[in-house]
Amino acid sequence: MRPDVKNALENILLQNPFMKQLGLELVSLEEGHAIGKMPFQESFCNPYGSLHGGILYSMADIIAGITACSYGSYVSTVDGHMNYILPAMNTTYITCKADVVRQGNHLAVYQVELADDKGNLLQTGTFTFYILQRSIV
Amino acid sequence: MRPDVKNALENILLQNPFMKQLGLELVSLEEGHAIGKMPFQESFCNPYGSLHGGILYSMADIIAGITACSYGSYVSTVDGHMNYILPAMNTTYITCKADVVRQGNHLAVYQVELADDKGNLLQTGTFTFYILQRSIV
Amino acid sequence: MRPDVKNALENILLQNPFMKQLGLELVSLEEGHAIGKMPFQESFCNPYGSLHGGILYSMADIIAGITACSYGSYVSTVDGHMNYILPAMNTTYITCKADVVRQGNHLAVYQVELADDKGNLLQTGTFTFYILQRSIV
Amino acid sequence: MRPDVKNALENILLQNPFMKQLGLELVSLEEGHAIGKMPFQESFCNPYGSLHGGILYSMADIIAGITACSYGSYVSTVDGHMNYILPAMNTTYITCKADVVRQGNHLAVYQVELADDKGNLLQTGTFTFYILQRSIV
Repeated sequence: MRPDVKNALENILLQNPFMKQLGLELVSLEEGHAIGKMPFQESFCNPYGSLHGGILYSMADIIAGITACSYGSYVSTVDGHMNYILPAMNTTYITCKADVVRQGNHLAVYQVELADDKGNLLQTGTFTFYILQRSIV
Repeated sequence: MRPDVKNALENILLQNPFMKQLGLELVSLEEGHAIGKMPFQESFCNPYGSLHGGILYSMADIIAGITACSYGSYVSTVDGHMNYILPAMNTTYITCKADVVRQGNHLAVYQVELADDKGNLLQTGTFTFYILQRSIV
Repeated sequence: MRPDVKNALENILLQNPFMKQLGLELVSLEEGHAIGKMPFQESFCNPYGSLHGGILYSMADIIAGITACSYGSYVSTVDGHMNYILPAMNTTYITCKADVVRQGNHLAVYQVELADDKGNLLQTGTFTFYILQRSIV
Repeated sequence: MRPDVKNALENILLQNPFMKQLGLELVSLEEGHAIGKMPFQESFCNPYGSLHGGILYSMADIIAGITACSYGSYVSTVDGHMNYILPAMNTTYITCKADVVRQGNHLAVYQVELADDKGNLLQTGTFTFYILQRSIV
């Protein structure tokens, strides 16, 4: 992918206060594919002691959204759908893998998989984005 | 609804660190129906300046989940689906209304609507919960 | 709504072979809102003796799609999501109500509710459509 | 998988009138994985000349459901979610691949991919099933 686009997207992650709070970092990013990593934080847990579903959804929406931006245009989320497989507990970090299903002219569809530090699948999801006529760089 | 169940659910909201961080409060709660309210916080915004979709999803999952618990049993989320209608900006707070579609023996389905302080619809969603064999009180 | 658009949409239902096979008819149609009706047919049942989920989904996609076209432009489905509440059996017909959640410039979101002849809610769903730059009349 | 369960599931496909109408056949079936095939039929097309989304959804629900039954218990669909990638046209048949994401004690989650005869991805989807306490054989 274009290095200036990659650089711009990495900066968004570094500067956005919510993403900083999540401790989210990009492990890899190329056109249509990305992997993110986030530490387990007790302050984001639900009353059952596992990471709140909304925190995992936030991670998924961010990583899928950055991947949908990897071709150079900004996007906005149309809808998101998450299936809960296992609770996120007894792990030091969470990974999120986002892969392109479709990158059209107007719409993009991405699949995500979230796993714990042993590789157990925690959640799967699908996000649809609208591709804005606005370049990232 | 049973006052002891209501009291227990209200305490969960008050004590959970993530829900406290969101500033989430219950405006009303009865069997199958609830309304929650959350302040707009800049620290939870995306790079576009609106509340992050994951924060709105968190609110929806929490309010729908508490409503699914209103009959007296704990639940766990099976899946969640959110449609993004308008960005959450220029508002001092967000409301989330959750209403029962189905409360079965094993599964519960809830619809949610999120709105801003002018009543504009921001997001709609559907959550499915598995009803645990574990009483709240 | 414009009578010529309404007329054109009603003709689509009458002429399309699949919709004829389903026995689908429009009970009412106005901008953003429609109600459809379909007979219970044993040949469309699953092995459990209730109408197949795919037949109910077909009805929902068609009625929501026609409603999304009610403003005058063709649409194509982006995604569909259905929650199964009760099996469709012991009923002579099914109704499907579609209501606009959002009709934007590019995207439309519709909610559907399917019920039996006693008014029991059978399924709820959400459909997202992309609005094509192509007028119906 | 158990040959008697496989045999029973294959018979369901052969005997059910709706599945016969679709011309649906099982290409392969093992625990958690199946591939189905269905001819393109003009009588199931939408007004745009491609297979109706409800027909593709029907195929996906059936193949995912049979796969969810491959461990020996009947299931009922909780919800289904389909993303439309490309229209199903200019193809002699459709294939549907269903793969287990999770087969729990009470709930099962399956992913599906539908493709045309050139291998183009047409739709992706996710289905959740409730596992009934009722054995297939």
